[in-house]
Amino acid sequence: MCESCDIQFGERGDKAQLEEGPLFAPKFDKDGLITAIAQDHATGKVLMVAYMNDVSLKKSIACGEAVYFSRSRQKLWHKGEESGNVQKIKAIYTDCDQDALVIEVEQVGNAACHVGYNSCFYRKVDGTTDGKVALTTTETQKVFDPAKVYGKK
Amino acid sequence: MCESCDIQFGERGDKAQLEEGPLFAPKFDKDGLITAIAQDHATGKVLMVAYMNDVSLKKSIACGEAVYFSRSRQKLWHKGEESGNVQKIKAIYTDCDQDALVIEVEQVGNAACHVGYNSCFYRKVDGTTDGKVALTTTETQKVFDPAKVYGKK
Repeated sequence: MCESCDIQFGERGDKAQLEEGPLFAPKFDKDGLITAIAQDHATGKVLMVAYMNDVSLKKSIACGEAVYFSRSRQKLWHKGEESGNVQKIKAIYTDCDQDALVIEVEQVGNAACHVGYNSCFYRKVDGTTDGKVALTTTETQKVFDPAKVYGKK
Repeated sequence: MCESCDIQFGERGDKAQLEEGPLFAPKFDKDGLITAIAQDHATGKVLMVAYMNDVSLKKSIACGEAVYFSRSRQKLWHKGEESGNVQKIKAIYTDCDQDALVIEVEQVGNAACHVGYNSCFYRKVDGTTDGKVALTTTETQKVFDPAKVYGKK
């Protein structure tokens, strides 16, 4: 994994500095994480929501590929490192108080979701079923069959 | 604020049900919140990241306008309720494990950010300043002047 030792963030200053200043001073929450939204740079589709810690964000900047911090596994997660289906970073945006990121990516393999779809957001709220809020699938087909891909492990 | 008493979510079942089942069964975290990404339905721009609790999500569905839960103020936040610059909901998407939402909206007034920009993500990571990661502003001008809007209060 690429080196990121030279990367330094700014100090978190006052509101004016955070909102209008020239330095990137990301806010990590009490668990040391910042929300990162991966968005397809070409289609604008939101692909997934994940989290980065200080190290994974620096590695993402240094590598030019998305490196997250997996909350379930409690370790760095260089997405697609094994399969080759990495997310090549085109741009990183931060919001007004610098506690969230939008990562514009090229999703190699065209599927960001482990379920096999292009985006994790493959369902929308649509009507009710037996009085409960229902979902409909908006992607017409999966990009890959997860049983074939993950079943081999 | 509109009524949402009839809205019921599904029970959180197993992985297969959550990923492929027909019911909306959102997962609220230990603080009772779910991450909600507001995206402009026309431009695809990610406008902001906020949070909803059970009540605000139900009200959003019932009202057709985004109602968040403000973490700083610890109360419901019907965005734009006073100014009229509400977010009209076009669609609500959820992700594979149903712990995040994408809300496609029409942003009335064309500015989602209190700083005055269309999007809260008005800056991108770009080079360094004095050895620290720098930001450049990507929106050419503010939609409104916050001093004029908020200064009146």
